[in-house]
Amino acid sequence: MVAANEEVRASGRTITRRPCTASIIVALLVAASTAVGANDPLPSWDDGAAKRAILAFVAETTSPGAPGFVPPAERIAAFDNDGTLWAEQPLYFQLAFVLDRVKALAPEHPEWKQKQPFKAVLAGDVKGALAGGEPAIAELVTATHAGMTTEEFTKIVGDWIASARHPRFKRPYTECVYQPMLELLGYLRANGFKTYIVSGGGVEFIRAWAERVYGIPPEQVVGSTGVTRFELRPTGPVLMREPKIEFVNDGPGKPAGINKFIGRRPVFTFGNSDGDQQMLEWTAAGGGTRFMGIVHHTDAEREWAYDRTSHIGKLDKALDEATAKGWTVVDMKRDWKRVFPFDDR
Amino acid sequence: MVAANEEVRASGRTITRRPCTASIIVALLVAASTAVGANDPLPSWDDGAAKRAILAFVAETTSPGAPGFVPPAERIAAFDNDGTLWAEQPLYFQLAFVLDRVKALAPEHPEWKQKQPFKAVLAGDVKGALAGGEPAIAELVTATHAGMTTEEFTKIVGDWIASARHPRFKRPYTECVYQPMLELLGYLRANGFKTYIVSGGGVEFIRAWAERVYGIPPEQVVGSTGVTRFELRPTGPVLMREPKIEFVNDGPGKPAGINKFIGRRPVFTFGNSDGDQQMLEWTAAGGGTRFMGIVHHTDAEREWAYDRTSHIGKLDKALDEATAKGWTVVDMKRDWKRVFPFDDR
Repeated sequence: MVAANEEVRASGRTITRRPCTASIIVALLVAASTAVGANDPLPSWDDGAAKRAILAFVAETTSPGAPGFVPPAERIAAFDNDGTLWAEQPLYFQLAFVLDRVKALAPEHPEWKQKQPFKAVLAGDVKGALAGGEPAIAELVTATHAGMTTEEFTKIVGDWIASARHPRFKRPYTECVYQPMLELLGYLRANGFKTYIVSGGGVEFIRAWAERVYGIPPEQVVGSTGVTRFELRPTGPVLMREPKIEFVNDGPGKPAGINKFIGRRPVFTFGNSDGDQQMLEWTAAGGGTRFMGIVHHTDAEREWAYDRTSHIGKLDKALDEATAKGWTVVDMKRDWKRVFPFDDR
Repeated sequence: MVAANEEVRASGRTITRRPCTASIIVALLVAASTAVGANDPLPSWDDGAAKRAILAFVAETTSPGAPGFVPPAERIAAFDNDGTLWAEQPLYFQLAFVLDRVKALAPEHPEWKQKQPFKAVLAGDVKGALAGGEPAIAELVTATHAGMTTEEFTKIVGDWIASARHPRFKRPYTECVYQPMLELLGYLRANGFKTYIVSGGGVEFIRAWAERVYGIPPEQVVGSTGVTRFELRPTGPVLMREPKIEFVNDGPGKPAGINKFIGRRPVFTFGNSDGDQQMLEWTAAGGGTRFMGIVHHTDAEREWAYDRTSHIGKLDKALDEATAKGWTVVDMKRDWKRVFPFDDR
């Protein structure tokens, strides 16, 4: 694709006043590059509509002279994490971390034996623990994510992510990432895009491993935050994590988080649930060339099949909007030749 | 300096097990480059201790083989804005914006004629308006910074900054920036540093002009934030600015803001007041090679002279700590050959 883009760039110089011709050339190059297996930047993607839409978007936005050209500084690509970059079943992975932490911390909290939602967690009754809805989850999160320094928390997450195993795949959670999305992240970066995670998960939970797993540095992770408090200790300053949620980067919070952390509107956004709908709308409303993508979990065999009625990663209204507006919906079963890096090909 | 660094790099390969030698070579190169006026990256800096400390830091952190080498990804440089990159007297510039906005909005708010602190602002009594301290300022800020979309706010700031004039210099506020600091920003970036603003000011106020003035893009501005609310209008989605301060990025809030927005600890930090003390401490505590700098306003003739007793940009405890710990204190009168770009040389 790099060579192809250079060709377009060379063509672009002579045809800046004929954008339609540029678009046709871009389309032809996309078609050509898709056919060339050896140089395929997205080998785990089936050569269907989703892959073609991605290739066309990148060719169009990176070809000077093309009507949809986007200057490098504005090439912001935002990805939801849970269900978009890595799996989210049978339970959000950060929630698995929370449950494990409750068990690890239980000896220091004898009162939890009699107190919900902790009592249910300790009895192995996940459904009962989550029956209290968001307040119960918030209580579990603050109890396990606060009371330590930011550095201590990063170490706790790092230790957990290195040792915990996914209940179905019996592998580290960081291996339960989608191979096609890893390819897409690399492809976008190779074309001058800055790739961001924009997740409802905790920003410090994700930063603890995102650079190693996705190549996304800490400063390009946008997520939910808790209050931290600066404390000057005899050994030096620390930031203490307080038991207070500061900002929830989900649903309508995602455009707010993007605006706060990045200060630019993405031109490319991928999500998978109704929690990404507003971020996708925000991206679409930017004008110019935009890409809005949704991962539709349709593969019960290799991963999971769920959408409108799922408690986790519910995809209902956003799916309707995607269909109505022509956003790219990835049918996991059809569009992905491989789901996880560990899958046989 | 680039050629000098390459020489060091070449030397570094052969002397990785002799870091002391590498340090001496670095020091010699710094001395040499300082003497060469034509290639001087910091021409508005006097060849004194402050400039030497900056050059030595950059040479040390960017020379592979040097004991203080910092990988490019970790080269985070944080700058306070008010009093560090641009002036802050006789009044923080954002506060001048607030006062102008109160006057502009007064016709829509007849009740302000009888209500403090608005009444004092409208009577031109700035001192009286600010006598109410932080609650009064917060009231003025929320009244002028909320009730519009983020895009409308950016336009309001852009219009104001293009037309308002500094009361003493009779120039746009964006010209009242420090020439030596513009050179420093460019020099750091040329050496692979990512330059960030970490300001107590509002993040969207600063982003409206920071890229044009400092070359710092929106995603590298950390500042105070207000709550925004996503709203889907018939014409498309907007983010409404709510009259609620969300996060104050000042004093102990600065390390918290750095941790939240950047997720990495800076290796180079410049401030000018006690509001930067915790950010400087946080930087110093990172271990390895670190640079902590303070601009000391000592030039009543070209700029202002103020420190321990000033209401604006008070520099007291941080000055004591800088002296005790050997941080770099810039004496504006002595260390800067030129203060503003418009100064005659």
